[in-house]
Amino acid sequence: MSLNHTPNAERVHIGIFGKRNAGKSSLINAITGQDLAVVSEVSGTTTDPVYKAMEILPLGPVLLIDTPGLDDTGKLGELRVHKSWQILNKTDIALLVIDERQGISPEDEAILNRIAKKQIPCIIVMNKHDLMPENQKVSLPENIGFPAIEVSASTGYHIPELRELLTSVYHVPEEKFRIVGDLLSPSDFAVLVVPIDKAAPKGRLILPQQQTIRDILEADATAIVCKEYELRETLENLGKKPKIVITDSQVFAKVSADTPKDILLTSFSILMARYKGNLETLVKGVSILDQLKDGDRVLISEGCTHHRQCDDIGSVKIPRWVRNYTGVEPEFSYSSGTEFPEDLSSYRMIIHCGGCTLNEREMKYRIACSEDAGVPITNYGIAIACMQGILRRSLEPFPSISAYLENHKDL
Amino acid sequence: MSLNHTPNAERVHIGIFGKRNAGKSSLINAITGQDLAVVSEVSGTTTDPVYKAMEILPLGPVLLIDTPGLDDTGKLGELRVHKSWQILNKTDIALLVIDERQGISPEDEAILNRIAKKQIPCIIVMNKHDLMPENQKVSLPENIGFPAIEVSASTGYHIPELRELLTSVYHVPEEKFRIVGDLLSPSDFAVLVVPIDKAAPKGRLILPQQQTIRDILEADATAIVCKEYELRETLENLGKKPKIVITDSQVFAKVSADTPKDILLTSFSILMARYKGNLETLVKGVSILDQLKDGDRVLISEGCTHHRQCDDIGSVKIPRWVRNYTGVEPEFSYSSGTEFPEDLSSYRMIIHCGGCTLNEREMKYRIACSEDAGVPITNYGIAIACMQGILRRSLEPFPSISAYLENHKDL
Ligand SMILES: Nc1nc2c(ncn2[C@@H]2O[C@H](COP(=O)(O)OP(=O)(O)OP(=O)(O)O)[C@@H](O)[C@H]2O)c(=O)[nH]1
Ligand SMILES: Nc1nc2c(ncn2[C@@H]2O[C@H](COP(=O)(O)OP(=O)(O)OP(=O)(O)O)[C@@H](O)[C@H]2O)c(=O)[nH]1
Ligand SMILES: [Mg+2]
Ligand SMILES: [Mg+2]
Repeated sequence: MSLNHTPNAERVHIGIFGKRNAGKSSLINAITGQDLAVVSEVSGTTTDPVYKAMEILPLGPVLLIDTPGLDDTGKLGELRVHKSWQILNKTDIALLVIDERQGISPEDEAILNRIAKKQIPCIIVMNKHDLMPENQKVSLPENIGFPAIEVSASTGYHIPELRELLTSVYHVPEEKFRIVGDLLSPSDFAVLVVPIDKAAPKGRLILPQQQTIRDILEADATAIVCKEYELRETLENLGKKPKIVITDSQVFAKVSADTPKDILLTSFSILMARYKGNLETLVKGVSILDQLKDGDRVLISEGCTHHRQCDDIGSVKIPRWVRNYTGVEPEFSYSSGTEFPEDLSSYRMIIHCGGCTLNEREMKYRIACSEDAGVPITNYGIAIACMQGILRRSLEPFPSISAYLENHKDL
Repeated sequence: MSLNHTPNAERVHIGIFGKRNAGKSSLINAITGQDLAVVSEVSGTTTDPVYKAMEILPLGPVLLIDTPGLDDTGKLGELRVHKSWQILNKTDIALLVIDERQGISPEDEAILNRIAKKQIPCIIVMNKHDLMPENQKVSLPENIGFPAIEVSASTGYHIPELRELLTSVYHVPEEKFRIVGDLLSPSDFAVLVVPIDKAAPKGRLILPQQQTIRDILEADATAIVCKEYELRETLENLGKKPKIVITDSQVFAKVSADTPKDILLTSFSILMARYKGNLETLVKGVSILDQLKDGDRVLISEGCTHHRQCDDIGSVKIPRWVRNYTGVEPEFSYSSGTEFPEDLSSYRMIIHCGGCTLNEREMKYRIACSEDAGVPITNYGIAIACMQGILRRSLEPFPSISAYLENHKDL
């Protein structure tokens, strides 16, 4: 596979931030050695985030994100600045571009604080060095905590050094969490409950089911797959007790009833949330259900548009269950596919699908945007487990979040 | 999903055949009501098969295949005619276009025989009716067995009737075979042996494995998935005997040794061949291994290009096993991806991969082309089972081909 075919989700995302006219677009052209980005002396040339897939040596395949200026003004300008800030949630390396002659502005400091809080590697790029008077020197604030480099996008001064610096600040993400393998010993049995309804993709298994089976095999354990109606008999016919039962959230109640109390029980949804590092956030998010009031806005959000199954759950079942569980009448809104509201501030909570069709980066982005906006977020599976009173049981396999549950006896 | 997005493999394939200048391309334009195909009074305007995806009411999404004239001459012309004949192997409905003034020629009769033999629904389209003298009447050969219709591509005469006729001659393909569900009763255990090597797609299961699990669930049975090294212990720990063990062909020998003789054993490869209706042909094809001689040309053909696993098997393992099994030194050729040799006549046999990345239609096409050329074809899994001496055991679940094996005690 040629590097040109690297999917965007797998590219290192480099977000380029800075005030209008700082030379962000020029810097992209200088780094890549190509005239990719529109450059002009008019302030506010770049008005929407622009994505460029590129190969930058020695770093490898990257996605450069050119953003609107951080000091844009007016109603529209504010919206643009908000977008630039949201881009941080998908940024692996941030470049803050400043016009060296002007030094660091309050807008620059504000985003630097945010970058530091999000623990994103960052480089301060002092651009237009060619225009600096011989004996003038910028003073950066003390303890800024990020490396700075003087460059000129126009002359190419220090551009190779900047490329090297990109590589040295970037931390390759740590090894992935396991899905379930860490809970299993070799030869353990793990039982998977997979309902087959007409909505399931014909002749296939959905990705979380495939991934879970793979992970079980990689742990030298055995995966036992059956429908919800066969679970009881399957358990009876196994010569030894399975270590864990993993079910589709939709049949949680039945499976919980049919699984003896001394066998661990959880859902694909919970396993995938843990695998992606989101379990704690999503469990915390579900607790807001208990505080919902009439008229509170609840956003139900789905990653896929065509999947009839999700559709039913999101538009029909979840709202009904929420009304029954809470006894109140919230106002439900829906989003699906790649659309996700820019402005989340009016929502009381977000209930998102498992996100199996979204890449991990997009799902993390949505969760981070929710956190930025202070809106609790949970997912279908965790919400269903909570509303059916089996969240506690389904989280038992994961002692690390028990402490949190101890303080929320109601869940 | 809009009909424009129907994948070609799912469209009804309509092959348009006939002599040069009969009006094949004109007919396509008349049927579709669009100027899609190049028309001219020069004989031999269409020199390569041309595919047009279209919606024809009332039939639905179709793929029209315009072919070169059946009476083309010279070395190149012959090749073109050969191609037109091969198109029959992907044709669901054949239209034989004749210039009504000329009547049916020997070339037309030859292809009609072939069409009849392949049991493809066909319509004889007597075109250019507008040029027929008032009181002249063509006489079709008796018992031709296909409906005929007089049309004019130029004036549109009888074109709506032809469209209706297309729908009435087309037989929707019968219900698919089952993969394994027909061998299972509710609550049966079926054990799947899935080796996990670094070549397997990360975090996923390949399609035949997914499809098999789905089919087992649809039969209300339970799928038990383990690696080859865990099979023995898994079998010991099951409280009841599984009905069948299904293994990846690559670990056939080990799995056969570890599976008690009173449990049915087969491979994904054999199940998929049966599912696609090709098992008998491919089992017959493998018998030629016993007659291979030094220097015989063996084509090893793969559906995918990037799949390291297939690659290893095809280029390294299969040739080695064939040499060991036969004791002769054949000459191996390779093809991969969508390329498949036009001319198969020089090969003694073809060993094809399972074809999991090819659509069913393409695989059927390749098998039909091999049959046309009189070249035996088999697949990796069946060849491996044969060379490891366990073909007989792995076909036991399918009594329908036992009769054939009875006459080939050597396999
Ligand atoms: N002399 C000099 N001029 C530069 C340098 N970098 C950028 N410029 C000029 O500064 C102006 C603004 O550059 P852009 O790259 O469009 O700046 P931007 O940050 O993308 O601006 P907006 O998209 O409006 O936010 C252009 O006229 C550039 O030619 C540099 O290193 N030296
Ligand atoms: N009068 C009349 N002319 C027709 C009719 N159908 C086709 N023609 C003419 O016949 C000639 C050949 O038509 P094409 O559609 O190119 O024939 P073809 O079978 O595709 O020919 P090749 O591609 O050369 O094999 C053209 O000049 C058409 O205009 C018809 O129904 N009536
Ligand atoms: Mg710009
Ligand atoms: Mg033509």
